[in-house]
Amino acid sequence: MSTTPRVGMLMGSLSDKPVLEAAARILHEFGVPFEWRVLSAHRTPNEAHAYIGTAEERGIRVMICAAGMAAHLAGVTASGTILPVLGVPVNASLDGMDALLATVQMPPGIPVATFGIGRAGAKNAALHAIQILALSDDGLRSALRAHRKAQAEKVLASSDELQKTVAEIVG
Amino acid sequence: MSTTPRVGMLMGSLSDKPVLEAAARILHEFGVPFEWRVLSAHRTPNEAHAYIGTAEERGIRVMICAAGMAAHLAGVTASGTILPVLGVPVNASLDGMDALLATVQMPPGIPVATFGIGRAGAKNAALHAIQILALSDDGLRSALRAHRKAQAEKVLASSDELQKTVAEIVG
Amino acid sequence: MSTTPRVGMLMGSLSDKPVLEAAARILHEFGVPFEWRVLSAHRTPNEAHAYIGTAEERGIRVMICAAGMAAHLAGVTASGTILPVLGVPVNASLDGMDALLATVQMPPGIPVATFGIGRAGAKNAALHAIQILALSDDGLRSALRAHRKAQAEKVLASSDELQKTVAEIVG
Amino acid sequence: MSTTPRVGMLMGSLSDKPVLEAAARILHEFGVPFEWRVLSAHRTPNEAHAYIGTAEERGIRVMICAAGMAAHLAGVTASGTILPVLGVPVNASLDGMDALLATVQMPPGIPVATFGIGRAGAKNAALHAIQILALSDDGLRSALRAHRKAQAEKVLASSDELQKTVAEIVG
Amino acid sequence: MSTTPRVGMLMGSLSDKPVLEAAARILHEFGVPFEWRVLSAHRTPNEAHAYIGTAEERGIRVMICAAGMAAHLAGVTASGTILPVLGVPVNASLDGMDALLATVQMPPGIPVATFGIGRAGAKNAALHAIQILALSDDGLRSALRAHRKAQAEKVLASSDELQKTVAEIVG
Amino acid sequence: MSTTPRVGMLMGSLSDKPVLEAAARILHEFGVPFEWRVLSAHRTPNEAHAYIGTAEERGIRVMICAAGMAAHLAGVTASGTILPVLGVPVNASLDGMDALLATVQMPPGIPVATFGIGRAGAKNAALHAIQILALSDDGLRSALRAHRKAQAEKVLASSDELQKTVAEIVG
Amino acid sequence: MSTTPRVGMLMGSLSDKPVLEAAARILHEFGVPFEWRVLSAHRTPNEAHAYIGTAEERGIRVMICAAGMAAHLAGVTASGTILPVLGVPVNASLDGMDALLATVQMPPGIPVATFGIGRAGAKNAALHAIQILALSDDGLRSALRAHRKAQAEKVLASSDELQKTVAEIVG
Amino acid sequence: MSTTPRVGMLMGSLSDKPVLEAAARILHEFGVPFEWRVLSAHRTPNEAHAYIGTAEERGIRVMICAAGMAAHLAGVTASGTILPVLGVPVNASLDGMDALLATVQMPPGIPVATFGIGRAGAKNAALHAIQILALSDDGLRSALRAHRKAQAEKVLASSDELQKTVAEIVG
Repeated sequence: MSTTPRVGMLMGSLSDKPVLEAAARILHEFGVPFEWRVLSAHRTPNEAHAYIGTAEERGIRVMICAAGMAAHLAGVTASGTILPVLGVPVNASLDGMDALLATVQMPPGIPVATFGIGRAGAKNAALHAIQILALSDDGLRSALRAHRKAQAEKVLASSDELQKTVAEIVG
Repeated sequence: MSTTPRVGMLMGSLSDKPVLEAAARILHEFGVPFEWRVLSAHRTPNEAHAYIGTAEERGIRVMICAAGMAAHLAGVTASGTILPVLGVPVNASLDGMDALLATVQMPPGIPVATFGIGRAGAKNAALHAIQILALSDDGLRSALRAHRKAQAEKVLASSDELQKTVAEIVG
Repeated sequence: MSTTPRVGMLMGSLSDKPVLEAAARILHEFGVPFEWRVLSAHRTPNEAHAYIGTAEERGIRVMICAAGMAAHLAGVTASGTILPVLGVPVNASLDGMDALLATVQMPPGIPVATFGIGRAGAKNAALHAIQILALSDDGLRSALRAHRKAQAEKVLASSDELQKTVAEIVG
Repeated sequence: MSTTPRVGMLMGSLSDKPVLEAAARILHEFGVPFEWRVLSAHRTPNEAHAYIGTAEERGIRVMICAAGMAAHLAGVTASGTILPVLGVPVNASLDGMDALLATVQMPPGIPVATFGIGRAGAKNAALHAIQILALSDDGLRSALRAHRKAQAEKVLASSDELQKTVAEIVG
Repeated sequence: MSTTPRVGMLMGSLSDKPVLEAAARILHEFGVPFEWRVLSAHRTPNEAHAYIGTAEERGIRVMICAAGMAAHLAGVTASGTILPVLGVPVNASLDGMDALLATVQMPPGIPVATFGIGRAGAKNAALHAIQILALSDDGLRSALRAHRKAQAEKVLASSDELQKTVAEIVG
Repeated sequence: MSTTPRVGMLMGSLSDKPVLEAAARILHEFGVPFEWRVLSAHRTPNEAHAYIGTAEERGIRVMICAAGMAAHLAGVTASGTILPVLGVPVNASLDGMDALLATVQMPPGIPVATFGIGRAGAKNAALHAIQILALSDDGLRSALRAHRKAQAEKVLASSDELQKTVAEIVG
Repeated sequence: MSTTPRVGMLMGSLSDKPVLEAAARILHEFGVPFEWRVLSAHRTPNEAHAYIGTAEERGIRVMICAAGMAAHLAGVTASGTILPVLGVPVNASLDGMDALLATVQMPPGIPVATFGIGRAGAKNAALHAIQILALSDDGLRSALRAHRKAQAEKVLASSDELQKTVAEIVG
Repeated sequence: MSTTPRVGMLMGSLSDKPVLEAAARILHEFGVPFEWRVLSAHRTPNEAHAYIGTAEERGIRVMICAAGMAAHLAGVTASGTILPVLGVPVNASLDGMDALLATVQMPPGIPVATFGIGRAGAKNAALHAIQILALSDDGLRSALRAHRKAQAEKVLASSDELQKTVAEIVG
């Protein structure tokens, strides 16, 4: 895979970086080139539109947008491109419920694929982006299968570790 | 007052008309010229931006935006103008809680003055717009005071009416 | 495009059909062949696993799953395939909030791209599926652009229609 | 602009000061004279009514009210004046959801323009107040435009800063 | 007991009458004289204050206030009297959750004894008022005990009725 | 199995009968003798305690309790017996969320096994009761397996039915 | 006033003591003798019933009950006495929303007068109890009026203090 | 009782161990042999199905499953066995409300007996499991009765302790 970014990631504020970092690490682990920007749907509408409107021609295949509160960034992105847009609600208030509803409840016609609140959601957005790219990339499909296997092994290893602690209780 | 519209009202879908109609009737009652459009932040972003960006120069003083679900219309409007923007959440799902949070929880810097869900909120948005215009309009100030007085009289009259029904219960 | 189904749609109960029908109509409109099944993560786990596990080799590229209440169908599907899985919460209780949270709050590692509650969400899931397929299909990209344009025109037409009704209020 | 306060700010308790301080700083930055009081709708109803009832004649143009829990302060203020009243819900319990609903869900006739919970909402209330004053003040309009520009530049600068941190991840 | 009203009931709008009617019937059943008014904390603040401020001297012992949305009526009443004030949230939006929180979450110092949403809550407010009056009224204490007994008998009778319907199922 | 009731079902009000009827039909289908009563934790505390306290010695093995609002019936039952107690929240207000929380959030020490809101929950409570009884009843275990199989077949049959309706959409 | 306790306070667990302590301090400040117990509706049903059933004859006039989670203590108390029962929800989980709904949403017939979550609610419950006792106690009525006055003075003093801090902002 | 595990406990992640530890301690206290595993419905579906499918024949009588977020583990377990399945929602986000709804709102046919969020719920799940086993075990029935008695004594002892602290307040 070339180094042209395939995934474009937008965050509404630099304070959202810890959330998208979780996505970035997964994309990097799978060797998927990405780029990221701080762009606000409200504070930099022009720059946001310019970035979104040229994403497709610059080779971006999937957009991931993270924002908190009345999170409009993913919706605004989706309205400016026909690329798949993935939304990650950030918990900046109300446990993230405001951002979740403002991201997922899009009116019909302009889809935003929404993931869970915070870092867990960001990881899954990255994996969904990789699943999309994998549809035309055998290497990514193999990597996804290996990732699933590694995940399972990690769970099973932690189950083995759990057994060692029974003595704390029944000892 | 001239017939140049002073209040611009946007709804995200024609199905939101019953909500903004409640605002329109109050504006008309106070003799405040208004205009309204169906414009979607997501489906007609260009037309929305064009409308919003020229509102101030066309003489609009206050914007009122009504939308449901992940209601971004007021936020997008607020990001495109320095006019006061009033948001009315519409109940299209989840009792309107999604629209309320997507409207009111704006990040700092781009304010949306939010009112209650549905027609009650739309009426209050219209009255707030009139209160703003009244700051430089003696006639509107008098009209607002008269409106308050009429409201109070209506309440008191309904209280009188209530007395007549006690016999249903204690009769 | 061949007639091999590219999108597989699962619903947890036949009562969810009106929701996925909204997705089916959009897929059909875009000429995307699809198949659908009633399969329950809980009541038919074996058949569900068999269907999900063979989806990729049968040519399915995207899965859409609709379910209500403690909606596990999309999560179970996602755990059984590396294809992109799209979840649509159905309102069967609690305004659909239970299904939304049970679909979107997936733990990290097994992504479910979640859309809004009910028919609006189902339409957007179908469009997201088409956006994914369009990444390697020029015809679908053109169709998506045309669809966006038609949507915008419909909004503008409804705005024209709105103007005719002002007389009801200011008349 | 004279030094006569144009914005009157009320908080229900001295513990709400950190919230309204965020508004005060913005008003001061724009050179808008303001005054503030601790006045409780419930504990000092007489003093609250006296203050509210004379605000207009003392030159106040906009009221901002912050309160938590069953936040009635903005509503009581709105019932005592025809000036625009802005409400800021404070998070004192239930993540501020109680204060949000008690502020925004005003019955028709007595409008309270509501902003987000806490300091973010207070900042936006201040900006909305400035937008109202700017309708008849060229200087404030210029200042608002400059503020928008500065906000955008801050976002873009943070985006530049973000790029420097990619090495942490892909390094 | 004389015919001087001992319980004063306020509703924010005539549309709340069906709720307070449930309270009125119980007061009447126990022979407790009451009076009721439509008075709005926001639309008729002066009349509300006048009524509330003279309640004690006119012989009222307990106030019951029913209101919906951002329900401030009970709180405003409580701030104007040292009589016990009982609040009944009315479901006018959001299933009554807004009215419940706006009534029950009073800041410390001004108590509102809150009951359930709607008619069930109104009945219990009436019974609580009677329990208060019964502290110095042997007759009311006896009547309350008889009411409890009648309630129990009604439950047991409905249990007997239930048995007759088993045949529908096991028949 | 003898005709001695093995499952005792309590409802807080005769209006909850449609909910427990769903449980009753399943118990009857599996040949599990049951009895049911209307007994209120609050209105008939003595009768409730008498019934609950003697349930074990009368041969009852599992209790199922359905109630709405501040649903205490299951908790009160659980405090009066060491038999397994199953709680079914009834939707009488707030979509049943009040009853759900009042049933499931029991403090540690007195367990209530809680099921979903309404008839769906009641059916599952009945099946859980049967699963408990089946631990010492081979016939019930076979019946449960057959029930699972029949459920799966019903799902698959509805999936077949679904196929016939594709023509409505793609026709 | 004699030293016979007039207010009986129950808490479901010793961990609720900080909440009822807020009530105790107010009762003590007004010179109202009280007693308190840890008694659980579920874990000590017999002792709870014994205590509640004899409260009236021992001279108790008002009961205050504080509990968290599926808070049944107030409801169980109310079912065992015709004294006024005041409920205080404690935040032990879900921000106290579970305890609030389990306390306030009592079915009709058995009233629980509910106050806000936690210490704020406990203070108000104590004041409501005092308001009830004050109906037949001139001294308490005077004390309540003095308390209101002191509260108002405290608010006004904090407002004066606030003025001194303006220099921090506009300095 | 033999040492063959009678209760099988599953957690979705090792991070859920503190929750199930509370259950383990109670099972151990009652002498009920148990086993536990980390198994994820999504990350280790095959291992989960293998474990669940053989639980009955290995002598397990009750399953307890704890998971957070979109908690499907209990539901998946319930779909793979006719043993009673107990679900414990874990607070990993949204105060555990997502896990509660994803566990309790199971569609009809596949029951999950749900307990409160976190350690309190885990303790109750363990006690419910013991109540089930006690139906055919006299020793466990005696132990449950003793446990109830000990709980009551602990409450009464804490009530005695409470009395000693009154001096802090009225001192």
